[in-house]
Amino acid sequence: MTDPIQHIQSLLPPRNTRRDTGEAYAPANIALCKYWGKRDTRLKLPVTGSLSVSLGAHGTRMTLRRAEADALTLNGEAVAPDSRTFRRLFAFLDLIRDPAHRLAIESHNTIPIAAGLASSASAFACAVKALESLYAWNLPPQLRSILARLGSGSASRSVFEGFVEWHAGSSPDGMDSFAEPLAPVWPEFRIGILTVSEAPKPVGSTEAMERTVRTAPLYEAWPKQVEHDLPRIRRAVLDHDFITLGETAEHNALAMHATMIGSWPPVIYWLPETTAHLHSVHRLRAEGLPVFATLDAGPNLKLLYTAEHEADVLRNFPMLIQIDQNPTP
Amino acid sequence: MTDPIQHIQSLLPPRNTRRDTGEAYAPANIALCKYWGKRDTRLKLPVTGSLSVSLGAHGTRMTLRRAEADALTLNGEAVAPDSRTFRRLFAFLDLIRDPAHRLAIESHNTIPIAAGLASSASAFACAVKALESLYAWNLPPQLRSILARLGSGSASRSVFEGFVEWHAGSSPDGMDSFAEPLAPVWPEFRIGILTVSEAPKPVGSTEAMERTVRTAPLYEAWPKQVEHDLPRIRRAVLDHDFITLGETAEHNALAMHATMIGSWPPVIYWLPETTAHLHSVHRLRAEGLPVFATLDAGPNLKLLYTAEHEADVLRNFPMLIQIDQNPTP
Repeated sequence: MTDPIQHIQSLLPPRNTRRDTGEAYAPANIALCKYWGKRDTRLKLPVTGSLSVSLGAHGTRMTLRRAEADALTLNGEAVAPDSRTFRRLFAFLDLIRDPAHRLAIESHNTIPIAAGLASSASAFACAVKALESLYAWNLPPQLRSILARLGSGSASRSVFEGFVEWHAGSSPDGMDSFAEPLAPVWPEFRIGILTVSEAPKPVGSTEAMERTVRTAPLYEAWPKQVEHDLPRIRRAVLDHDFITLGETAEHNALAMHATMIGSWPPVIYWLPETTAHLHSVHRLRAEGLPVFATLDAGPNLKLLYTAEHEADVLRNFPMLIQIDQNPTP
Repeated sequence: MTDPIQHIQSLLPPRNTRRDTGEAYAPANIALCKYWGKRDTRLKLPVTGSLSVSLGAHGTRMTLRRAEADALTLNGEAVAPDSRTFRRLFAFLDLIRDPAHRLAIESHNTIPIAAGLASSASAFACAVKALESLYAWNLPPQLRSILARLGSGSASRSVFEGFVEWHAGSSPDGMDSFAEPLAPVWPEFRIGILTVSEAPKPVGSTEAMERTVRTAPLYEAWPKQVEHDLPRIRRAVLDHDFITLGETAEHNALAMHATMIGSWPPVIYWLPETTAHLHSVHRLRAEGLPVFATLDAGPNLKLLYTAEHEADVLRNFPMLIQIDQNPTP
């Protein structure tokens, strides 16, 4: 069998080498049905499908310029060539760019820093789109998603706006594991971020994912959880059924954290305030306010609600950072 | 097929009716490998086996007296005949006693109230032993355990002292689902209770167990968890291997809570302080102190440690209530 990465590379169009800059933008995304566990680490193939909503104007904007040597600035600050961020990004670009090309990259995150959202999904999705711009490509959307996936699994979803589904696929070469747009953003749908801690996480999310898969007997039932949740969330997005969406997304996120809590050594991202906020969300729901929580691999909460209840949610969570997930104009 | 409860009743010896009082004691117990999920609600047959340590002098002492009418006092206070406690206890006694006998019961719990330990296990185990005393029986230990199980699953373990294993069994009539003593208490083994809240639980533990089995996809992997944990804990008890015992008991308890967190609506017994204490336990372990946590269906922690580290544990948790689990003299 051809090496799967070489196969992907063979699908790339010829590189137009007359341009010397490329520019692109890609949004961050928040998973409503989580990506948790890889079946192939190198190709970043997931154990299950997942479904997210892209965050409109919150993401990564990148400019690439042909240069004498590779260089990276992030929000205006130079990133050291021996840093993990630098090496990971250029190792990824090496999969796609002309081997003779060196690139100077300016990357800007437009995600509020206090929101503590992961930027790797938008960064890798953006890098693919910026190379497309540099080489004057117009890649098929599935290939664009597959390329982004090689950088970071969830980047496969960040190449699209609105609600996006990443199909798990079953092929060993991953050619059926790509994301597709499911539906445009639903204007009344709201996301707000409750930041509990901006401190570095005690366990990185890649390590947490790998430890869970390796040591949590409960993880064996995670595909069953997704089998339950993913079709419900997909249907709820298409029907604008907010309650089903909120309930299922919260159930899914708590189940993901449950698998981490059940790993060894346990990965407990929840801080005391995380627990307190979860109880507040449950109390408010019991009082009739339709608000739901989702959490990624960390202590911070993302609240889901609708425009109708925005004022009530903000009154109860004054520290909430509202995220406008409408697409960039 | 004979009704399984009638079958159990057919095994009881003739009742000696010359005595008019019976008296007994049974200890509470803390599960190191949890009982979580029933395969038969009426017979209280568990999905998996479990393993506990009985709490010595902390339990229930009961005196039964032949009387004109059923009556119950609990720690000296009369319990109303229409209360759940009263009805549940007498419905249970009706399975065993002479139908013509009315009983006045004095029950005393010797469990520190602040410890918030469930008393149903010791109460039902004690009721069986008190009836044995009243009727001058000397039941085979397995039958004694099966009878107690009909009152409350974990009562099957409280008829014994020391470390006790309850075999799940597989027979539909439950005749192979009884507890057996595994090993005497290990003198250096210590248990301390960290009470986070004495408030009534928002969800009762029976409801939590049923909701988990019904709604948590992750619960499907719980038997796998027990298959991993139970033999390790059994071996560690026999070998006095405290680290394996502590690690496995904590993993098991966290996995049980994980299945609740993954149920819907979620059962999150953890309060902010529960989360804080769990992080403290993990920090202390990282610093080299061998202390582990287990939690039942509630927010309070039970810490496991050894005599050697008792002073260090108490210094770090000044509110700890130490439980002496040596058998009653």
